[in-house]
Amino acid sequence: MEEILNSLKRKIGKEITFSFKVNDDSFLWSEDTKLLEYHALSTSALLEEVHRSGYLTLKEELSDGFTSVVFSTSLKHLKPTPYSFNVFIKLKIVNIKKNEVIFEGEAFDENEKIAEFKFSRIIISANYLKRKIHEKASKINGYQ
Amino acid sequence: MEEILNSLKRKIGKEITFSFKVNDDSFLWSEDTKLLEYHALSTSALLEEVHRSGYLTLKEELSDGFTSVVFSTSLKHLKPTPYSFNVFIKLKIVNIKKNEVIFEGEAFDENEKIAEFKFSRIIISANYLKRKIHEKASKINGYQ
Repeated sequence: MEEILNSLKRKIGKEITFSFKVNDDSFLWSEDTKLLEYHALSTSALLEEVHRSGYLTLKEELSDGFTSVVFSTSLKHLKPTPYSFNVFIKLKIVNIKKNEVIFEGEAFDENEKIAEFKFSRIIISANYLKRKIHEKASKINGYQ
Repeated sequence: MEEILNSLKRKIGKEITFSFKVNDDSFLWSEDTKLLEYHALSTSALLEEVHRSGYLTLKEELSDGFTSVVFSTSLKHLKPTPYSFNVFIKLKIVNIKKNEVIFEGEAFDENEKIAEFKFSRIIISANYLKRKIHEKASKINGYQ
């Protein structure tokens, strides 16, 4: 873990860009089915892509046996983005506290800035996390 | 709009509960396909349900011609929730600034508290929003 964190510390402040295209209904604003007619990117789909960008940034550095989960997240959604647009996510690691990696960044569509965000992911043992989830599922389902 | 906001102000501080069941793959943690094996609720799916709870709370009070969009959102995801669990979202309106309605709350699964959140939705004219999205789409697609 120590080695991973030291390697990540060298990435602090370096901007990384990811992109995706709003080309699937799962990206669309649909808290209510009638909202689908707006044909616009939803806040939660944007957040999923933002979180994924952080996941991929960390994955490069993680050895097998480790994964990362979102701990805290915040976003301001400034402008709507129509279907078929490309979206660019620019993010950087701004801090690392123990095993928590803090990211900040902005998202743009082909026309303008659409969001600002800050989130953190915690690096943990994949086996530990799997065990915890399994134990919790078993408790409720009465298997133990 | 004035009437809507006055009516909403009477809801400030009143707790409202929503629930959903993690019973569909679209709820699952999947920033990477191999994460599906954890069979756990994703942060972005939880956020979508949190935002939807706010949408439905406002929808009750909105006359036709108005809708609401997420402006700012933040969440701390404290514990994992396995597939098949029920999740309960407890939220309340804590403030209203102009046409921005601010919500706060917590989410629980059948076992424990899993998240804390704060988000705001802006109430706007549905036609205005549709026009803005359409104009933006036309600009890039070269229809104007």
